[in-house]
Amino acid sequence: MKNILVIGAGLSASSMLRYFCQNAKKEGWFIKVGDQNGDLAKSKVSGCEQAEGFQLNGLDPEERGPLIQWADLVISMLPAAYHIEVAKDCIKYKTNLITPSYVSDAMKELHQQCVDAGIVIMNEMGVDPGIDHMSAKKILDEVEAKGGKMHIFESFTGGLVAPQSDNNPWNYKFTWNPRNVVVAGQGGAAKFIQEGQYKYIPYNRLFRRTEIIKIAPYGEFEGYANRDSLKYRDIYGLHDIPTIYRGTLRRKGFSKAWDCFVQIGATDDSYVLEGSKDMTKRDFINAFLPYHPYDSVELKLRHYLKIDQDDVIWDKLVWLGIFEKTKMNFKEDVTPAFFLQKILEEKWKLEPQDKDMIVMWHKIVYNLNGKFHEINSHMVIMGEDQTHTAMSKTVGLPIAICAKMILNGKIQQKGVHLPITQEIYEPILTELEEYGVRFVEQKLDKAVLYDVIV
Amino acid sequence: MKNILVIGAGLSASSMLRYFCQNAKKEGWFIKVGDQNGDLAKSKVSGCEQAEGFQLNGLDPEERGPLIQWADLVISMLPAAYHIEVAKDCIKYKTNLITPSYVSDAMKELHQQCVDAGIVIMNEMGVDPGIDHMSAKKILDEVEAKGGKMHIFESFTGGLVAPQSDNNPWNYKFTWNPRNVVVAGQGGAAKFIQEGQYKYIPYNRLFRRTEIIKIAPYGEFEGYANRDSLKYRDIYGLHDIPTIYRGTLRRKGFSKAWDCFVQIGATDDSYVLEGSKDMTKRDFINAFLPYHPYDSVELKLRHYLKIDQDDVIWDKLVWLGIFEKTKMNFKEDVTPAFFLQKILEEKWKLEPQDKDMIVMWHKIVYNLNGKFHEINSHMVIMGEDQTHTAMSKTVGLPIAICAKMILNGKIQQKGVHLPITQEIYEPILTELEEYGVRFVEQKLDKAVLYDVIV
Repeated sequence: MKNILVIGAGLSASSMLRYFCQNAKKEGWFIKVGDQNGDLAKSKVSGCEQAEGFQLNGLDPEERGPLIQWADLVISMLPAAYHIEVAKDCIKYKTNLITPSYVSDAMKELHQQCVDAGIVIMNEMGVDPGIDHMSAKKILDEVEAKGGKMHIFESFTGGLVAPQSDNNPWNYKFTWNPRNVVVAGQGGAAKFIQEGQYKYIPYNRLFRRTEIIKIAPYGEFEGYANRDSLKYRDIYGLHDIPTIYRGTLRRKGFSKAWDCFVQIGATDDSYVLEGSKDMTKRDFINAFLPYHPYDSVELKLRHYLKIDQDDVIWDKLVWLGIFEKTKMNFKEDVTPAFFLQKILEEKWKLEPQDKDMIVMWHKIVYNLNGKFHEINSHMVIMGEDQTHTAMSKTVGLPIAICAKMILNGKIQQKGVHLPITQEIYEPILTELEEYGVRFVEQKLDKAVLYDVIV
Repeated sequence: MKNILVIGAGLSASSMLRYFCQNAKKEGWFIKVGDQNGDLAKSKVSGCEQAEGFQLNGLDPEERGPLIQWADLVISMLPAAYHIEVAKDCIKYKTNLITPSYVSDAMKELHQQCVDAGIVIMNEMGVDPGIDHMSAKKILDEVEAKGGKMHIFESFTGGLVAPQSDNNPWNYKFTWNPRNVVVAGQGGAAKFIQEGQYKYIPYNRLFRRTEIIKIAPYGEFEGYANRDSLKYRDIYGLHDIPTIYRGTLRRKGFSKAWDCFVQIGATDDSYVLEGSKDMTKRDFINAFLPYHPYDSVELKLRHYLKIDQDDVIWDKLVWLGIFEKTKMNFKEDVTPAFFLQKILEEKWKLEPQDKDMIVMWHKIVYNLNGKFHEINSHMVIMGEDQTHTAMSKTVGLPIAICAKMILNGKIQQKGVHLPITQEIYEPILTELEEYGVRFVEQKLDKAVLYDVIV
């Protein structure tokens, strides 16, 4: 019997736990699932004989210590900042660890200690990061094996609403942490490199320098740049690549409307808006507009942002209810970003029958024997329901498959790692296809070198 | 004999030290001036028998301790962050202290200790803050004495180039710390209140929501909002005032052109621009523009910011040399803000014969017996030369006069204070008039309530 400890039973753990339960007998696993909400943990493994859910404070070393000692493998679904303490316990008790989060500098420093303890800590084993790394590295390794020289690498991922549930003018609903959506892009300029030139996009331009991407039969999307594309040169071994660009996907038209909130300052999370606890939605918008004794908030906003009355942007803004004279009833004054988030949560909420969608898209251009070649690769997956969402499947299933490989001895690496080597990505991508995570690759006759990033 | 210790002999100390030297005999003062640059300190008091300049590390408690003990009054011209340690020494040795900087929270906490030690620490005794407080509070107290109820308080100050030295299309030269000019307005939204409504302007809109101010015979200026106007409600005792707004003055047309740098992200000081040590000015601008294989940097910038070729903004940008293929030769990669600062320093440098100018403007509207009244008050002062600049005079002379009043026993306050009470501002403003710091007051028949802040 192999013992698996899962810390955290939230949304992103659902499909992983279903995989564990379905395979527990065959693989000889016993799974313990601890969550602050014990009932939630129990419900996620109900009906499974070889699994047990219970209440656990994963941040308490005394509570988690004996469980980590018991386990052969720990999966930490805690918020990213807490993985490091779990990792130290895993080294102490010589237990393997998987997390879906970006590897931190502190985590990297544990590499030699992990090697010495004979364990592996696999990071970035989710969707973005995770499946993006694995699917990109697969293509990149194939190109390299052919002797191709990489010229362009672009990669975009988006968590969106499935077409059958897409019934609002923004073509967007919250399928993941709303706060991250509201503050996306803040905290520094987006960096990338294009044709050998470093390029920087400040926050106030980020949603106006988007790239349009068509993915048949799903239609048109747009991508805005992620904060730091440059670090992927090292991670993917693309040190001399002239163009590298990573971004986030939305439906076409989202960014131009979203930029209205950026421009007026409504996404700022750095200060508390005085008097905001008693503000209506209309007051909130008005706080960012010039004072005028007679003009309406609507007129002032249209004038300020130069929006025509018949512009689709205007329909989007009105639909959100931002001009309504209804109070939000906060207990205390809040930041602009928080106020906006609460307005959006009312409108961008996934309804019980709604399904989400994950879209991933890669563009690779390489030079082989003096000729440019282009490969486009995309993956689109829909959620089954509100439990087994596309997000839950694409985050949880790579972890589950990776867990199986570690417990079966198929992954022999020790230390702190990312899923970027063939021995890891190949079997995981292959098995993911059974669950609908399939990449469709298109080889183009002619490479498009420019005119793509605007 | 009364002993004065001045820590720091830089530009802003010049006019103060001249005042001390001119009055030393009459008042019975001995002045010691310490600066990291001993020669500079000596030169600023040369020819004065009752003064001595020398090399001093003002940050070293062992060096400054005996000097503070010797002195009856210390004037700290150190960077703002270092005043607090000097203040603690002043309490220890029971020596009075004046600084021209904003009072910090740490400084405020020393109030009772100062009272117990029987000393006064006078802060914000310069021009802005300083003369702005004193001149505003004088009008406000007069209005209050008449029974007027304050409705609007607006106050703007600018350090500019004098008209006779104003020979560039920006109508601007650096007369003070260039870095502060480049990063002005960053770090949060500008806050103010207008007609009882809280208003917030994000950085990316700050230079587009300016107010035009005409001051005869000097012409037109424009003001952009300072970070936090709201705290002046408490400082000035204007708790219920419907409109309060403080800002910085530039010549009309500056802000619209400056906004180009804000919009492309060239004023960002939060990250290092990769490869910037080898960039030309042209490369620097290009780093913020979309890639294109054929279009020029000029065309891309015009297109990106929608600037017509015959727009005066374009003349301003070209004049700065931002499209030149000349390298800056930095030793290491720098931030965008630093790169831009160095470009600007070449062009906005005060020439040896150039003179600077300080402009201050207040607008006060109050209600008396059911009728609105408006008072405008302005002060314009030119520099004499590169030593006794308008900035040096307006920062240094209030300190010098305040010093005299403390040493003469005219200021009886003990503790940590600002110059906002009549016993302080009245004599200082009166004596400042002898040095050309004169406010011209205009009472308007009709108050302008709206349409001012756009």
